[in-house]
Amino acid sequence: MTEADTAVALDWSDGPLPAVAQDAETGAVLMLAYASREALAQTRETGLAHYHSRSRGELWQKGEESGHVQRVAEVRVDCDGDALLYLVEQEGGACHTGHESCFYRTLDGSTVGERVFDPDAVYGETPDGGRSGRGTRSGRDRGSR
Amino acid sequence: MTEADTAVALDWSDGPLPAVAQDAETGAVLMLAYASREALAQTRETGLAHYHSRSRGELWQKGEESGHVQRVAEVRVDCDGDALLYLVEQEGGACHTGHESCFYRTLDGSTVGERVFDPDAVYGETPDGGRSGRGTRSGRDRGSR
Repeated sequence: MTEADTAVALDWSDGPLPAVAQDAETGAVLMLAYASREALAQTRETGLAHYHSRSRGELWQKGEESGHVQRVAEVRVDCDGDALLYLVEQEGGACHTGHESCFYRTLDGSTVGERVFDPDAVYGETPDGGRSGRGTRSGRDRGSR
Repeated sequence: MTEADTAVALDWSDGPLPAVAQDAETGAVLMLAYASREALAQTRETGLAHYHSRSRGELWQKGEESGHVQRVAEVRVDCDGDALLYLVEQEGGACHTGHESCFYRTLDGSTVGERVFDPDAVYGETPDGGRSGRGTRSGRDRGSR
């Protein structure tokens, strides 16, 4: 499958669609990212959540580096066909900060979400304190952009 | 308050932020819309969910016409500061189709969400079968755009 041929018509007129990942078991909203046609097709073909990075202009698979993949149980579409909901089983945590969910803070800065892994251990850290490899904020395993 | 002055820095560089509304009690993801600074400020000031219509370029309050308001218990922000999560108590249903959630269909067209109200009764219908007033797909009480 090279295209997202779906029974429900999707509105791609504005480009990649916002895709909400929700933990299928707990109901936690884990992250919001974007899905291109290709990302959606790859998600359906592999059963693993794929997204489109708007900043890098490329396809990425969630957990490609960290191993924190999302197994997609179901994809839902909204009434207008311009937003997606991935119901997922999340390996590890969704957020590159180590939290279960990228939405771990309230607007006033209180941390309400649980930290479930140590990002330095997962993504690696160089001796000067910077992060190594691709697990940085501009890397291939990001949550949102 | 005329601006969204938040402790957590938000990234408005791409314009209004995608905002996911989640039922605070059931965990159901109800809809995805967009929040401008003004919409976020109004949401915080009134405790009722406000969004920004990208197609009409204006502020709208969810439930303004239908009465199906969203009382916002908490606003969360994601790790990048470019997506919002409204935890809400939803009056009636979130979707203009009468469903609890706008995400009531799977990608293959199966209806998995519950219908909780009759949209014709809520939004009105004219004798020729069209809808009256502002409760149409281009009206002021829409879910997504």
